Amino acid sequence: MPKQPANPEPAHPDVDSMLSRKFGKEVANYFSGSPLNRLAFLRADNVFLSQALKHSSTSFLLCNELQPLVQANTPPGAGKLAYVKYEDIKPVIGENPYAQTEKEIIEAYNSDVYVPQMIFLGIDEKDKNGLEYQGKNKYMGAPYFAIDVTPRNSVKEACEKLIEAQKAKGLDFSKGRVMDVVAQDAAVYAEARQLLDWNVRNPFCASCGQPTMSVNAGFKRTCPPTDKSTKRISNALPSTTEQVVDQSARPPCVTRNGVSNLSFPRTDPTVIMAVVNSAGDKILLGRQRRWPPYWFSTLAGFAEPAESIEEAVRREVYEEAGVLLGRVVIHSTQPWPYPANLMIGAIGQAIPTGETIDLGNDPELDDARWFDFEEVRNALAVGTSGLGEDAPAGYKEGGLRLPPNTAIANQLMTAVVNGFASGESKI
Amino acid sequence: MPKQPANPEPAHPDVDSMLSRKFGKEVANYFSGSPLNRLAFLRADNVFLSQALKHSSTSFLLCNELQPLVQANTPPGAGKLAYVKYEDIKPVIGENPYAQTEKEIIEAYNSDVYVPQMIFLGIDEKDKNGLEYQGKNKYMGAPYFAIDVTPRNSVKEACEKLIEAQKAKGLDFSKGRVMDVVAQDAAVYAEARQLLDWNVRNPFCASCGQPTMSVNAGFKRTCPPTDKSTKRISNALPSTTEQVVDQSARPPCVTRNGVSNLSFPRTDPTVIMAVVNSAGDKILLGRQRRWPPYWFSTLAGFAEPAESIEEAVRREVYEEAGVLLGRVVIHSTQPWPYPANLMIGAIGQAIPTGETIDLGNDPELDDARWFDFEEVRNALAVGTSGLGEDAPAGYKEGGLRLPPNTAIANQLMTAVVNGFASGESKI
Repeated sequence: MPKQPANPEPAHPDVDSMLSRKFGKEVANYFSGSPLNRLAFLRADNVFLSQALKHSSTSFLLCNELQPLVQANTPPGAGKLAYVKYEDIKPVIGENPYAQTEKEIIEAYNSDVYVPQMIFLGIDEKDKNGLEYQGKNKYMGAPYFAIDVTPRNSVKEACEKLIEAQKAKGLDFSKGRVMDVVAQDAAVYAEARQLLDWNVRNPFCASCGQPTMSVNAGFKRTCPPTDKSTKRISNALPSTTEQVVDQSARPPCVTRNGVSNLSFPRTDPTVIMAVVNSAGDKILLGRQRRWPPYWFSTLAGFAEPAESIEEAVRREVYEEAGVLLGRVVIHSTQPWPYPANLMIGAIGQAIPTGETIDLGNDPELDDARWFDFEEVRNALAVGTSGLGEDAPAGYKEGGLRLPPNTAIANQLMTAVVNGFASGESKI
Repeated sequence: MPKQPANPEPAHPDVDSMLSRKFGKEVANYFSGSPLNRLAFLRADNVFLSQALKHSSTSFLLCNELQPLVQANTPPGAGKLAYVKYEDIKPVIGENPYAQTEKEIIEAYNSDVYVPQMIFLGIDEKDKNGLEYQGKNKYMGAPYFAIDVTPRNSVKEACEKLIEAQKAKGLDFSKGRVMDVVAQDAAVYAEARQLLDWNVRNPFCASCGQPTMSVNAGFKRTCPPTDKSTKRISNALPSTTEQVVDQSARPPCVTRNGVSNLSFPRTDPTVIMAVVNSAGDKILLGRQRRWPPYWFSTLAGFAEPAESIEEAVRREVYEEAGVLLGRVVIHSTQPWPYPANLMIGAIGQAIPTGETIDLGNDPELDDARWFDFEEVRNALAVGTSGLGEDAPAGYKEGGLRLPPNTAIANQLMTAVVNGFASGESKI
């Protein structure tokens, strides 16, 4: 897979509080820190989903072309998601898409029928007016769903009307990458976006080529054994060709026998790494041609099949910069829902004979250099901003510029210059 | 996705040497530690691949139904892969599947033609009689390929003959999970297996439902814009129906516009975690019903979309055991090519008010219990073995049994009882 850019993005005022959130002392990066309990084990329980759908405490996040509805007039970096209620979305989804059991819904599958994609995101257990549901244990909280309201197919008009109603209230959908909402909302949106995108991106079975359907509240796609379609379109033929078939049975598919990973959402592990020289006083940073002048970040790339993360870190640093690493330690991780990455942040140290930079193997980078800790420490103080933003006050032209603290790259560099790689710390 | 078992497997004599392998001091788990340089940036260079294919130093790993050819009469736990030469596989692959450029091969795509899957695994740079290739830099080493010789379609007889020839030499294909070969061979096989399996498992485009083809030496599947098939089979219809079409253009597909993750191999991140109580003297272990008596291991499961690894660890431990975690730190990772997992090993600590075990949320486990460090330390000394094996000498009936040191679960428990979670160490 092509290399993963370091993705520096706008600074975020909420990150510092994330670093000491309720459950842990480890570094929690932007897009993590969800306030919701996903209740994964209730996703196939349509009695639960039906109650969650209609409860007075339930919130629905509308996404149009994967962009979320957001509140109006929020301060920069403190954006908030906006939610609607069941009555608002009823014209789009109908009375209750979970009225039957999942088994019954699969048996009735008809690939002619467009079903707006919904995702059950979880419950907020802090809401004391939330739904109470007695499963194997009792669960209490306000349910959250995401719904794809991109105007399409049979629900085009209903979606357009719903969208217009929100705009009439002064609300609108976010534009570009969503990096300006508060951290907890970013985590909720990341879940919504990654699941909606995965469903949209995978309408056919990679094993047999037939259309699949979404089940498990948006967390699984199944290849139904039957299809009630009256006009099943041959996928192998130009899409104008239509075939009328009089029976609903479909050819066999191996994904129906046992468990197949093709039925479940995909997440692509990536590596991103702060590389320290063998003396422990310099960091290796690289830059891409399209970045602003003086801007650098940590190296990064996709992990490959059948390599450990530690090996992936060594391979990427060798490919992109020719530098050879000794020890590699994992620092923290960051979900990255564009479209489905998991960024695994590591800190590695070069071996003394492997510090010469060589951009010739895989010419991904425009430049790569070793920077003194002191220069990086200074840039972390006065040179960070989002990629599209101006340098902050205090920055002097010609000085090193770096990504903001919402980027895991920034957290890795911060850890290194604060002593992560020194004798007193844990590397 | 369903939970990932801890996968305890047979002990391996080579693991201790892996722990201090050339490049790092961090824990290197079984299936990592490949001796090959993958040269990822040369995978689309068919001039390079053609030379690598025919070089005298080149080795081919045959896989039949994903099982590798292995050497005969090796001692237990010291198995070795067996390789063949170009002349052996020529009847299966033809003179040179890389004779044209990749662009030309895609333009000539014909879904009627069966192409045996090959994977370029990398070069062994320690072999001084290897291929020398001048790309942007000079690369030297002995090339390794994997090839799927499962007898199928047009190459059924050629594969059968090749397989018989190996058996006549006393060689045979491995059976069951390959955990008894030396560590470096395990890493080479893991790469071969995961890539061969991914190609076999994904013959159709999940975006448009049409057949795809393997490119980039087995590391990419592309959805060609044309298909020279004379009998393209409609995927939406029963597979007996054949359609004759007189033009090769196929419907549009979004994977052809820019980069799509659907074109690249999938790796599923999983979490596996040693959980320590808040006092720091007990470990939480669980067991599945199908395991032998007294056998326990660490908890594990698939990471979900848009959660950090640290969040995934907390969610899984809550779902499976009802225990609530504070800090979570990542320890090491393990590739797991059955079929495409990346196991991310972590160590987490319970919060004082969250230590009560509750198996009721998601009844995955038959039992879960807190074990004193002392009991785990003793079991690591006298109670480890592969799942299907007898307890080792020195084990007393009724004592705790644990997975062997090829399992990352074992490495995590070892780290904990050796002080990873104590004040002097890095948690």
